[in-house]
Amino acid sequence: MVFVGFGFLMTFLQRYGFSALGFNFLLAAFGIQWALLMQGWFHSFKDGHILLGVENLINADFCVASVCVAFGAVLGKVSPVQLLIMTFVQVTLFSVNEFMLLNLLLVKDAGGSMTIHTFGAYFGLTVTWILYRRNLEQSKRRQTSVYHSDLFAMIGTLFLWMYWPSFNSAVSYHGDAQHRAALNTYCSLAASVLAAVAVSSAVHRKGRLDMVHIQNATLAGGVGVGTAAEMMLMPYGALLVGGLCGGLSTLGFEFLTPFLESRLRIQDTCGIHNLHGIPGIVGAIVGAVTAACATPDVYGKAGLVHSFDFEGLKQNWTAKTQGKFQIFGLLLTLAVALVGGSVMGLILRLPFWGQAADENCFEDSVYWEMEEEKSRAFPEDTTLKPPAPPGPSGPSASPGPSAS
Amino acid sequence: MVFVGFGFLMTFLQRYGFSALGFNFLLAAFGIQWALLMQGWFHSFKDGHILLGVENLINADFCVASVCVAFGAVLGKVSPVQLLIMTFVQVTLFSVNEFMLLNLLLVKDAGGSMTIHTFGAYFGLTVTWILYRRNLEQSKRRQTSVYHSDLFAMIGTLFLWMYWPSFNSAVSYHGDAQHRAALNTYCSLAASVLAAVAVSSAVHRKGRLDMVHIQNATLAGGVGVGTAAEMMLMPYGALLVGGLCGGLSTLGFEFLTPFLESRLRIQDTCGIHNLHGIPGIVGAIVGAVTAACATPDVYGKAGLVHSFDFEGLKQNWTAKTQGKFQIFGLLLTLAVALVGGSVMGLILRLPFWGQAADENCFEDSVYWEMEEEKSRAFPEDTTLKPPAPPGPSGPSASPGPSAS
Amino acid sequence: MVFVGFGFLMTFLQRYGFSALGFNFLLAAFGIQWALLMQGWFHSFKDGHILLGVENLINADFCVASVCVAFGAVLGKVSPVQLLIMTFVQVTLFSVNEFMLLNLLLVKDAGGSMTIHTFGAYFGLTVTWILYRRNLEQSKRRQTSVYHSDLFAMIGTLFLWMYWPSFNSAVSYHGDAQHRAALNTYCSLAASVLAAVAVSSAVHRKGRLDMVHIQNATLAGGVGVGTAAEMMLMPYGALLVGGLCGGLSTLGFEFLTPFLESRLRIQDTCGIHNLHGIPGIVGAIVGAVTAACATPDVYGKAGLVHSFDFEGLKQNWTAKTQGKFQIFGLLLTLAVALVGGSVMGLILRLPFWGQAADENCFEDSVYWEMEEEKSRAFPEDTTLKPPAPPGPSGPSASPGPSAS
Repeated sequence: MVFVGFGFLMTFLQRYGFSALGFNFLLAAFGIQWALLMQGWFHSFKDGHILLGVENLINADFCVASVCVAFGAVLGKVSPVQLLIMTFVQVTLFSVNEFMLLNLLLVKDAGGSMTIHTFGAYFGLTVTWILYRRNLEQSKRRQTSVYHSDLFAMIGTLFLWMYWPSFNSAVSYHGDAQHRAALNTYCSLAASVLAAVAVSSAVHRKGRLDMVHIQNATLAGGVGVGTAAEMMLMPYGALLVGGLCGGLSTLGFEFLTPFLESRLRIQDTCGIHNLHGIPGIVGAIVGAVTAACATPDVYGKAGLVHSFDFEGLKQNWTAKTQGKFQIFGLLLTLAVALVGGSVMGLILRLPFWGQAADENCFEDSVYWEMEEEKSRAFPEDTTLKPPAPPGPSGPSASPGPSAS
Repeated sequence: MVFVGFGFLMTFLQRYGFSALGFNFLLAAFGIQWALLMQGWFHSFKDGHILLGVENLINADFCVASVCVAFGAVLGKVSPVQLLIMTFVQVTLFSVNEFMLLNLLLVKDAGGSMTIHTFGAYFGLTVTWILYRRNLEQSKRRQTSVYHSDLFAMIGTLFLWMYWPSFNSAVSYHGDAQHRAALNTYCSLAASVLAAVAVSSAVHRKGRLDMVHIQNATLAGGVGVGTAAEMMLMPYGALLVGGLCGGLSTLGFEFLTPFLESRLRIQDTCGIHNLHGIPGIVGAIVGAVTAACATPDVYGKAGLVHSFDFEGLKQNWTAKTQGKFQIFGLLLTLAVALVGGSVMGLILRLPFWGQAADENCFEDSVYWEMEEEKSRAFPEDTTLKPPAPPGPSGPSASPGPSAS
Repeated sequence: MVFVGFGFLMTFLQRYGFSALGFNFLLAAFGIQWALLMQGWFHSFKDGHILLGVENLINADFCVASVCVAFGAVLGKVSPVQLLIMTFVQVTLFSVNEFMLLNLLLVKDAGGSMTIHTFGAYFGLTVTWILYRRNLEQSKRRQTSVYHSDLFAMIGTLFLWMYWPSFNSAVSYHGDAQHRAALNTYCSLAASVLAAVAVSSAVHRKGRLDMVHIQNATLAGGVGVGTAAEMMLMPYGALLVGGLCGGLSTLGFEFLTPFLESRLRIQDTCGIHNLHGIPGIVGAIVGAVTAACATPDVYGKAGLVHSFDFEGLKQNWTAKTQGKFQIFGLLLTLAVALVGGSVMGLILRLPFWGQAADENCFEDSVYWEMEEEKSRAFPEDTTLKPPAPPGPSGPSASPGPSAS
């Protein structure tokens, strides 16, 4: 899921499909191995050996998902070497943060609204903020999508959409909690689609839809119920959260991303702040509220204890304590992401990582062997190659070459 | 499955990929929520609450599949608002029809040959018949496919193909019946591929294959065994049914669709009559015959009672009665589809739903924000934009711009 | 998995996407039916009936995977009729070979390194060697990929990658062995991605990556642990094998394939020798060594007997005997593949199977009905159609038409 979903979601750039897919593949493969080791040391280390099971693979997958989120912010602007370093550091920080949240603060976060999405988004945004490229508009032209690249991106969207219920429920307790997580996620995702379409149409002056919103905001609902998925959110609650996240996310793409880019100098290629950042925070707060409102009436007494593990260390906890600690978890995550992202960004600014020049960003041919055929297929891109000598038929020939 | 499969199956139109995917996504998300409510009221209403489980989600999925089928007939000719209204009405009618079939007529229909495919197809065809557009040939040019759009459609085909066995067996009784359903469907699908290829090659004067047939007729086998899948059809029976449906479906695309369009004024964009209509009816009849021929020799006495629920109300039923009621179910489905479709079509003909003009059908840019890049990528489409002033090199430059 | 994965993996050719997908679909559908019969006769024949279950379907799938491998070698150069004959013969031989290996030599081969990959690869290579086309460079131009066809191929790669752990563990004993198989495969695949990227970058003089390597060599790790997957390979072993296979495979694409084509006259369209041939042999040897080194210390005494079935006929076998027989199995497989492939190739050389001429290879329009639109979309292909009369603006118009 991580491979297909995130990979294709990022193929929307017209000339950066190879890199989006290939580098995502690379970092995921590397990240999973490193995550297996890291999480093995933290969670299942015993007698000098790491006990390995399918559970570990799922957790490593989650960890890598967080890296993929951050990758979305810097897509097109970093070299593979930078990416591997970022993966290495982020997986480490993710494991530390997750350990603190789940094992020290005893927070619940089944779908990873906090640990995966909020952490990944703000880590990535901090990195891209520090890696700010002043002259990025030189390659602005390649930062748009073309018809078929948008269709490829929809493969990613639909894949993530389909597997999100499984994703959010993968590490829940089997039985009731798992079914609840899947159903809540499903409802939230469906509401999020409706909200995204409605808001996308509403903010456009002619009522048209924007493919970017459909590709991204439709998934915001899944992020938004991440923490609360396995709790008693009830279908109506899930619909509400999903609608809210879908709407906020669309508005974010329309208004917040340009603002971030022009004022705060945060160049967020894929708009991860809208898809993961905001919904992640919403999800964490929803989770905290849902946890704080948990009563024995709804869960049953034993159910409450079982759902929130009110045993052992947490014996004296009430639902309110749990809610409070959820909020602490969110704040801690944000802190780790911002500090970690800053350090990471400063390291990546060192000049010897083989970064592409500003005018070569979002360009596959920097890193990939492209055949002549292909260069000929994109003759309109005159920022890279000297323009072909215009014949006498200049005006009619120049719009001719198609882009896809 | 519903999202990826049906979505991509409809991307074959060269300029309508965004709408096919996006609107399918929209109607599925809306339809599932409404179907959960509707089916909840009919089937699992208890103490003022709807009991929700994974089973319900599957049923809602089925219901939406039926809407997607009908969407195929009107694809490119209706606005999103019309689509939402149609989804709303069709989900309602589907639930009523399903309730009558399964709970009143006590019919068996595991894979939904009747409830999903026949109902969806004839509902959609009736709607498109009433929405007949006289001047549709003005946008005929955009109704064809291009190379890459056909490849995207194959993603849909292969996805549906792969998941059809799970689809047909999802709501069967666990154990034998479920395995039987999966195996029968598998055999039928495989036979259907062979038949489609053979017939497609046979009807072409030079023996070439047609991608449309491969995309669609290969799935007819799955529709055809929908009702009988969980019964004792035996592999040979399944192969036979699959081959028959695959062949009929291909012939339908070649001869029936043009006839329907020119004589009966039914403009069936995706050819759903061939993929869902005919095989659906075949499937219903096969199901009736298989049910009528069921003997205790093959099923065992307890097996027969268990398979067809010959208990309680149906205590005195024989296999023949079951077969008879299956036929009643088919007729009732057709009646509901035709009457419902007519009413629906008349409602959708009202002039204030934001329909596109005849010459703008099958055109993404009516509903989607397209970047300048993209418009430039399709300069050959001169029906929408004024043609670029032809330079002196008119003849050699105009075939230049490629379409995909 | 077989359908989507192999189908899309082969869509990389710029003008052969329809045939790759369509013919792969056809041969898989036909092959599965024939394989069900063949394997039914060999393995589950009882009282004149073939007992059919989900297990049989999986085995038939494996058998077809082997045909798909061989298809990769002859892709673009054979007609559908030749393909069906080849499928027929290869499924038969596969079943014979598998029966000899698993039931007579009592070899273990859960993921089919030997039975599927080695057999399929060398069978296909022998066939393509005998079908050598001297003048194939006439259609060399169409044998390259274009931007979007490479993205479609990545769908195939990622699908195969994702499902390979399930594939390798599908027929293992449930429980420990199955989990072990999935984990080993996963580790090996991940290592293989890293190795492929590293080597691909190392062999290019400017350090760029080649999409062909990423599409193929990343999967070599899955082939390499096929035999040993369910054994106690340990994660480090799996990482080592995966890295080795990924590296070897990339080197093979870079150096061995051109050598094979120019010197040994083996025209290997998809480079299956690198993806299936070499890693298959490596996998078989790794399997033999792992089996030979199995000790009761690692497996436990009962575990060893259970894992390798040291019961009944094999009562007196030691781990070393098992290792020796594994090697015999590999040699037998190679012999069957070479002899069978030669006979097959000679049959397919007969002149009445409707082969395409050398200059029409890798061309969809020979077998598929293409609309005028599409031909216009590829005006650069002047080997098939007479070139359009060049206007006065020759030089500026001719690079215009895009290829994808």
